[in-house]
Amino acid sequence: MDIIKPRTLSGFMELLPGKQIQFERMANILRTTYASYGFAPLDTPIIEDAQILLAKGGGETEKQIYRFTKGDSDLALRFDLTVPLAKYVALHTNELAFPFRRFQISKVYRGERAQRGRFREFYQADIDIIGDGKLDILNEAEIPAIIYKVFKGFGLSRFQIRVNNRKILNGFYAMNELAEKSGEIMRTVDKLDKIGADKVRAILIDTCGLTDVQADEILKFIAIRGTNAEVLSALESYAGRNEIFDAGLAELKAVTANLAAFGVPESKFAVDLTIARGLDYYTGTVYETTLLDHPEIGSVCSGGRYDDLAGYYTEKKLPGVGISIGLTRLFYVLDEQGLLNSDLPTAPADALVLPMGGEPGPAIALAEALRGEGLRVQLYGEQKKFKQKMAYADRLGVPFAVLLGEDEIAAGKCSVKNMVTGEQITVTPAEAAAHIKATLAANDGPVILEK
Amino acid sequence: MDIIKPRTLSGFMELLPGKQIQFERMANILRTTYASYGFAPLDTPIIEDAQILLAKGGGETEKQIYRFTKGDSDLALRFDLTVPLAKYVALHTNELAFPFRRFQISKVYRGERAQRGRFREFYQADIDIIGDGKLDILNEAEIPAIIYKVFKGFGLSRFQIRVNNRKILNGFYAMNELAEKSGEIMRTVDKLDKIGADKVRAILIDTCGLTDVQADEILKFIAIRGTNAEVLSALESYAGRNEIFDAGLAELKAVTANLAAFGVPESKFAVDLTIARGLDYYTGTVYETTLLDHPEIGSVCSGGRYDDLAGYYTEKKLPGVGISIGLTRLFYVLDEQGLLNSDLPTAPADALVLPMGGEPGPAIALAEALRGEGLRVQLYGEQKKFKQKMAYADRLGVPFAVLLGEDEIAAGKCSVKNMVTGEQITVTPAEAAAHIKATLAANDGPVILEK
Repeated sequence: MDIIKPRTLSGFMELLPGKQIQFERMANILRTTYASYGFAPLDTPIIEDAQILLAKGGGETEKQIYRFTKGDSDLALRFDLTVPLAKYVALHTNELAFPFRRFQISKVYRGERAQRGRFREFYQADIDIIGDGKLDILNEAEIPAIIYKVFKGFGLSRFQIRVNNRKILNGFYAMNELAEKSGEIMRTVDKLDKIGADKVRAILIDTCGLTDVQADEILKFIAIRGTNAEVLSALESYAGRNEIFDAGLAELKAVTANLAAFGVPESKFAVDLTIARGLDYYTGTVYETTLLDHPEIGSVCSGGRYDDLAGYYTEKKLPGVGISIGLTRLFYVLDEQGLLNSDLPTAPADALVLPMGGEPGPAIALAEALRGEGLRVQLYGEQKKFKQKMAYADRLGVPFAVLLGEDEIAAGKCSVKNMVTGEQITVTPAEAAAHIKATLAANDGPVILEK
Repeated sequence: MDIIKPRTLSGFMELLPGKQIQFERMANILRTTYASYGFAPLDTPIIEDAQILLAKGGGETEKQIYRFTKGDSDLALRFDLTVPLAKYVALHTNELAFPFRRFQISKVYRGERAQRGRFREFYQADIDIIGDGKLDILNEAEIPAIIYKVFKGFGLSRFQIRVNNRKILNGFYAMNELAEKSGEIMRTVDKLDKIGADKVRAILIDTCGLTDVQADEILKFIAIRGTNAEVLSALESYAGRNEIFDAGLAELKAVTANLAAFGVPESKFAVDLTIARGLDYYTGTVYETTLLDHPEIGSVCSGGRYDDLAGYYTEKKLPGVGISIGLTRLFYVLDEQGLLNSDLPTAPADALVLPMGGEPGPAIALAEALRGEGLRVQLYGEQKKFKQKMAYADRLGVPFAVLLGEDEIAAGKCSVKNMVTGEQITVTPAEAAAHIKATLAANDGPVILEK
């Protein structure tokens, strides 16, 4: 038979078992945290009608999308979870209770140019709250509060959620008679971190056609820094000149106050007037999240408030607020930086039961008893020498090997070997389970260990 | 703006939130059970190189596969989880410890003709154990024992795992000088349940070219019925005439004995000589699982032992044993039959916190306190009338509403309303959490309720 050389496509993450277990730990924290805030799990199809996915169309999306035909159907793979959510909500409006809160942790597809750390298939972990016509500002504080819980749950402390409000920006531009250019200006200002103030100023004047005075007003505005109280206070000095600005400032103050009520410490969020998000559909609060020690990777979690989720699919006004974590990329970066906690076991089992010969019955019963105590247990069934069995346990990285020979069987006991310390005790199965559980619990720690 | 009518492609399951929560319950039981037996979670890409996916090629697969090009790449969506596993194991042989045990619960794609209950995108929930050169017979009992645990975990009792061994069939055919026709005969015999003995006999004679004597021998053989002991005993009478037959019989006896050791009751598995599985690559033990009250849907979980997992990708011999549950179809059938336990809550939250006005701070703190006790809690932030708030709680189907008004805040308490019984008590947040948890635990039950 001809052999075809196996390979995995570039841009597609395929993890070895130990790494996959580390990935699952992060995904589980996301799932559990999202669920604890009353978000419903959704699971929409990966393939959708291409016309529907591309209703908005244009730009990078159309270039990157995986689109193909099958029979007469024009199909495409989803490139994010927001468009399928919009379709879902528009399609099922009458069957949903609003506010509708959903989370989805699923793969999306973008045929980007392959490069290190860029993925063509990657997980997004999204939460959104959709209102029917209206949606209270409280939701705009809850969303970043949940992200704080997620990152804290990962074990991260060196992160910051940055918050701004598009109405403040739009209102400010209106004050300076730049309303029509606000989109263009925001996209330019968005690059501040990457290219610096001088280049931003040059683009504002040369490309956007601003006067020197206007450009300076903008740079002065986005240079407002300090504690959240200081930034809000500086913003107060612009108040009363534009209704939209004033509405945005009131929202930003409410979000800031409520974030504190949700238990998010001041050190973990910052009002940052340079945050605008490139996308046009955000209309109020916007978020970005940065890892303080890794500003080079940009925002690892972004989102905001929008007024019209599903305008392409329904005449119903569906405002919402949502946020998205690029989980595959985040995992890749954390791994590359060596931040995944390597003290946590990455074996698929807590214990490997090794029968030392004879009929398999007693070993099967022992393994089942340990599973009954909540442990993940692999039964080793191969006929190999002792040394090979132990080598397998080592290779697998199991924290415990549980040996069962004739002596142990006769005594109703088993020998539990701690594969890290080498310590070995001979105890009853119930004692073995308790010992293993206690040791694992004592060695438990966060998924991520900051250096 | 032009409105595009939203729709989901036919053959793609997209569930409403309550149903999705029921689906997740089943998926969680699968994940937890598989993990408890020391299987590593894997997550291979959905898109693979088409040449690699279709290495085996031919038949229905090639017709049904979603295949397309992107740039210069010839790509396809996986149509099962076995071929990607073969690729994975061949690619990563040196990085894996053998026996390698993995589970994967993921979507696969087949462009079948759309019809009721047939899906083009569906979940398979697979476990496989792969050996390096050799693999002990013990694994062939463990696999169906795990499936027993899964189905029991679902709450099902009216199911049966049917076991056979291809070597017994091959050996038997060899005894009757039908070795070369064994594939053809097995495919015919596989249809026994569907078309009956007379039609099978007719096909054996007319199409396969058997003599009357040979056909009768086969029908007599597959008519062997009774308890497992009776069937094994009847098979003993064929022993000593063919080596392959004898090897198969020894394996079947070992699997049967070990299944009992794993705690699988005799009523839940049956040695059934009519089970052959259509696929050529099974070489030993084969499994099918039927819902006793729904024989019409066929096997809901099938698999078996194979000698050569990855022959298309590597010269290494990788024998294995695996089984697969068609989860989407199983869920669809159980739902359609009304077997999903509707007493279990399907709301995304255990409790909905309803602030009765004033600043949101105390309601936020209450919701956070209840989450700290392990509850899934939604905070309702909309400014609506009491009646509308309660209507929302009803619509959402939450088991508990937790009301927080000025009186409660002043007293450091909250009012917990059981949305099913209407009972309402005013207690501290800690008492509220304990009360809600106790009530939910008392109402807990299996995912599936047989009628």
